[in-house]
Amino acid sequence: MKLAIVFGGASYEHEISIVSAITVKEKLVGFDLSFIFCDQDHRFYFVDGSKMKAVTFSRGEHRKMPQLTLVKGGFEQRGMLGSKLHTMPILNLIHGGDGEDGTLASLLDFYGIPFIGPRKEAAMLSFDKHYTKWFAQSVGVKTLPFEVITPKTRHTITTDYPFIVKPARLGSSIGVSIVRDATELDYALDVAFEFDSVLLIEPFISGVKEYNLAGFGVRGAITYSIVEEPHKVEFLDFEKKYLDFSRSSTVTHASISPELVTQLQSAFSTLYTPLFEGALIRCDFFEIEGEVYLNEINPIPGSMANYLFEDFRGAIHQLLASLPMKKAITITYDYIHSISQAKGK
Amino acid sequence: MKLAIVFGGASYEHEISIVSAITVKEKLVGFDLSFIFCDQDHRFYFVDGSKMKAVTFSRGEHRKMPQLTLVKGGFEQRGMLGSKLHTMPILNLIHGGDGEDGTLASLLDFYGIPFIGPRKEAAMLSFDKHYTKWFAQSVGVKTLPFEVITPKTRHTITTDYPFIVKPARLGSSIGVSIVRDATELDYALDVAFEFDSVLLIEPFISGVKEYNLAGFGVRGAITYSIVEEPHKVEFLDFEKKYLDFSRSSTVTHASISPELVTQLQSAFSTLYTPLFEGALIRCDFFEIEGEVYLNEINPIPGSMANYLFEDFRGAIHQLLASLPMKKAITITYDYIHSISQAKGK
Repeated sequence: MKLAIVFGGASYEHEISIVSAITVKEKLVGFDLSFIFCDQDHRFYFVDGSKMKAVTFSRGEHRKMPQLTLVKGGFEQRGMLGSKLHTMPILNLIHGGDGEDGTLASLLDFYGIPFIGPRKEAAMLSFDKHYTKWFAQSVGVKTLPFEVITPKTRHTITTDYPFIVKPARLGSSIGVSIVRDATELDYALDVAFEFDSVLLIEPFISGVKEYNLAGFGVRGAITYSIVEEPHKVEFLDFEKKYLDFSRSSTVTHASISPELVTQLQSAFSTLYTPLFEGALIRCDFFEIEGEVYLNEINPIPGSMANYLFEDFRGAIHQLLASLPMKKAITITYDYIHSISQAKGK
Repeated sequence: MKLAIVFGGASYEHEISIVSAITVKEKLVGFDLSFIFCDQDHRFYFVDGSKMKAVTFSRGEHRKMPQLTLVKGGFEQRGMLGSKLHTMPILNLIHGGDGEDGTLASLLDFYGIPFIGPRKEAAMLSFDKHYTKWFAQSVGVKTLPFEVITPKTRHTITTDYPFIVKPARLGSSIGVSIVRDATELDYALDVAFEFDSVLLIEPFISGVKEYNLAGFGVRGAITYSIVEEPHKVEFLDFEKKYLDFSRSSTVTHASISPELVTQLQSAFSTLYTPLFEGALIRCDFFEIEGEVYLNEINPIPGSMANYLFEDFRGAIHQLLASLPMKKAITITYDYIHSISQAKGK
């Protein structure tokens, strides 16, 4: 089965996207895989599978590889003797900006290229944690209370200590701090404002239970992964998360009640359908006093959360067989015809 | 001053975008204008200014014109003797899908092409009327109450008659109905579901005062248009709206109190900054018992609302001189370097 992994991107998560792509490559043995690297300047390169190592990109060796141009239906490779069009479905594996903010989805949809990944609207609503809250509330999934802070309103925080400071539009824990008291506040805000002009403040609940659940939908039916209880570190910093993106061995089911599994799956399903159709996503939840709260939605989880699926290859196969395509619009020019007739032109 | 108008698009508003572009062309005498037509199949054509007539497109004459490919920095025109890159700022004048849903913004941002128009996030939040409500409420601008209806929930409406049914993601009054009683409901829903799978239901307030205000920001300072009180028809149907998109003669200020003007401008400014930077937008408001309510945001108003500005050419000049560009991200490969060193590779 043909599939091209697009990775890299002009994103703070560029490097973990490379790690993710290398991991997914190993998990999709048997697929007819291609690799398309997007550099920080938004140039696309066609990468030979044998060169899929992190140092290929850090050393700049991709620059010697064939460049690709996105055109209607696929990626065009120009050569001395004409050009070749690469047509295959895409797995969007650009984490963070470009991939998760709806940019790549817009490009692929515009050029009529089928892809696994969130559509632009789904991407935008999950990329900005502030919009994720609106969305979850509107469909009836609980979230923690929050405040939105900009540089102008940094002195107006009313949440009690301890709280978490997060850039609104970054994943992978970049720029995230726990603030325990006023002495830690300024530094935490300065760090977070390095990455984004909009921050989220949320209460920090020590020892809260966390559960991760991934899944995907095919014609309305959702396949769920196992539920994972992530390791008990207060939260993952960038280096730990980086290693996390190369995870490939299947984890064990969290030891939780069937009722909680049902609650988590029900929240997942409510969030997923129909907005995330075409994507394999991971939702990270909290459990507080028997109630499920959405923490965040990862519309392109690290290494596609392969480690949560018993049959990851089967999952990608199923998704590929049912990718949504944008509805075509037929322009009739009826109005222009009627108006020009009325004008006698 | 160089400027290319991009118009058309795979949108239910394709034809009014053509009308809009022709109108704006007449209003920007003195600019070094180019015209780029996007057809319903997402092909770009370079249109000679002398051919800027509606029938050029309805007759398909654009197909004989040079085709363009979007590449880094501009639009590429390929020829027998090599290719030429057209580089100039863009005026995004595609109404509806492609233009107002964030797609074109994503494309132009990705390829580093400066443009007048909403950035992708601004487009997304104003394109879906449901998200516009969330956004307005979050910044403290009032809106009418609403319900969101999908085909599954069409029998759950609780709003009292009379109410308005609107497709969530279409402009130009397409698919919009006033429903006065239960006998009119099914037909109105069927019409609206033709265009969108998500509908908004809002109370219909007969004789409510409506005011339109356009404007744009340059480095934090907003230039406001005059306030218009649109004509008293219950709402504009598609043909009336179509003619509305060719408006070019300046209208007169609504006869309203300076206090109301200040209220409208204050709501506009709250909505505009910073989300809509780079765009000239029109906000349509209601006034109910002395309070201002947002009806909708038009991030690419018909014919750029030229008729509301005393100096429309000056407005476009000012916008062009201060277009926002996406912040570049520098990839250092520090993590890959440190990890490959640790591995001894």
